[in-house]
Amino acid sequence: MDAIPLLTLKRLPKYLEALYRFKRAGLKMVSATKIAVFTDVHMTQVRKDLSYTGVVGVPKVGHKIDHLITAIEDCLNWNDVSSCFLVGVGHLGKALMGFQELHKKGLRIIAAFDANPALAGTYYQGIQIHSMEKFTNLISRLHVHIGILTVPAEVAQEVADQMVANGVIAIWNFTPAKLNLPDDIIIENVDMSSSLAVLSRRVAERLHVEKG
Amino acid sequence: MDAIPLLTLKRLPKYLEALYRFKRAGLKMVSATKIAVFTDVHMTQVRKDLSYTGVVGVPKVGHKIDHLITAIEDCLNWNDVSSCFLVGVGHLGKALMGFQELHKKGLRIIAAFDANPALAGTYYQGIQIHSMEKFTNLISRLHVHIGILTVPAEVAQEVADQMVANGVIAIWNFTPAKLNLPDDIIIENVDMSSSLAVLSRRVAERLHVEKG
Repeated sequence: MDAIPLLTLKRLPKYLEALYRFKRAGLKMVSATKIAVFTDVHMTQVRKDLSYTGVVGVPKVGHKIDHLITAIEDCLNWNDVSSCFLVGVGHLGKALMGFQELHKKGLRIIAAFDANPALAGTYYQGIQIHSMEKFTNLISRLHVHIGILTVPAEVAQEVADQMVANGVIAIWNFTPAKLNLPDDIIIENVDMSSSLAVLSRRVAERLHVEKG
Repeated sequence: MDAIPLLTLKRLPKYLEALYRFKRAGLKMVSATKIAVFTDVHMTQVRKDLSYTGVVGVPKVGHKIDHLITAIEDCLNWNDVSSCFLVGVGHLGKALMGFQELHKKGLRIIAAFDANPALAGTYYQGIQIHSMEKFTNLISRLHVHIGILTVPAEVAQEVADQMVANGVIAIWNFTPAKLNLPDDIIIENVDMSSSLAVLSRRVAERLHVEKG
């Protein structure tokens, strides 16, 4: 299994969204050019990215949309559901526990943990919430390799260390904390703070100009 | 108000997180070098980024942490609370409506909208939920310029068009949809799908090698 470049991986879901949309509109076939126009990526790049999925289009005809969807989903491993667990059952944690999209994208949350003892033993969206005391025992017993981190920033590092100590190889980090972990741990940050920083500043700049 | 480069804006929240952490640990002063080590950004870059905030450190002594926090927060306009509204009261929408962090980062959700008539008139986390029929009237009356988009991908474009038609200048887009909007609209995407694509594939590559 060859490593796919980071930027290709980040673009593949955009192509998928376009393909889902073409499919909903009743289309059967699609060209790389059409995907390029729709996603605002250059068509040479689209062709190159799609080549990593192994599908080959027919010249002047393009790709069967269904085939291309399956090829990209396979490439992202979204058709092969992985179990994961979540630590931090706050607002964001609950949102992810209820997020149907995760199932479609190959991720199933099989257990949740929270430091609040009042939550221990309760269920949310059918997923049992455990106390942090059970963490070590349960995670190693379940052989889960992926952890979702939705705790407050100030405890993020500590919980991430605990995850790694119990065999986790990949962390989906929703906290603004920078995690310092061994190089072989896969960390993906969903950085809402950076995104909000850009948004807030750009709005301030714009309104400042308008006020003159 | 000068435009700050995109990558600087994206790094400033990371420096802030480090500064909050130093402050919690009881420190009063910090050097750019220390921030660099903690955030894994080169110290030349840290110095350059901090220069945009207008603060000047004392040679060999560094910055007062409190001053630097305020300067970065001001720079990101996080001390000046902007009103915004949210469309799509699903799991993610609710998470954002309950997210205390948003207040600290200058964003206050003052109204929410959802296509589900059963939600119209109800409240969540103290925020009233309105039907989409009230959208045009309410948004233009409230003079809100920022919209949060947490609807399903298939209606994202339509709702974004409606936002823009009613005077919105900035959209915080949590859907995987690519929005096609006029060039002067500020769009910030929190792209969970791209992030999950990278995570899923990297885990698959790793486990494949280990099984290999």
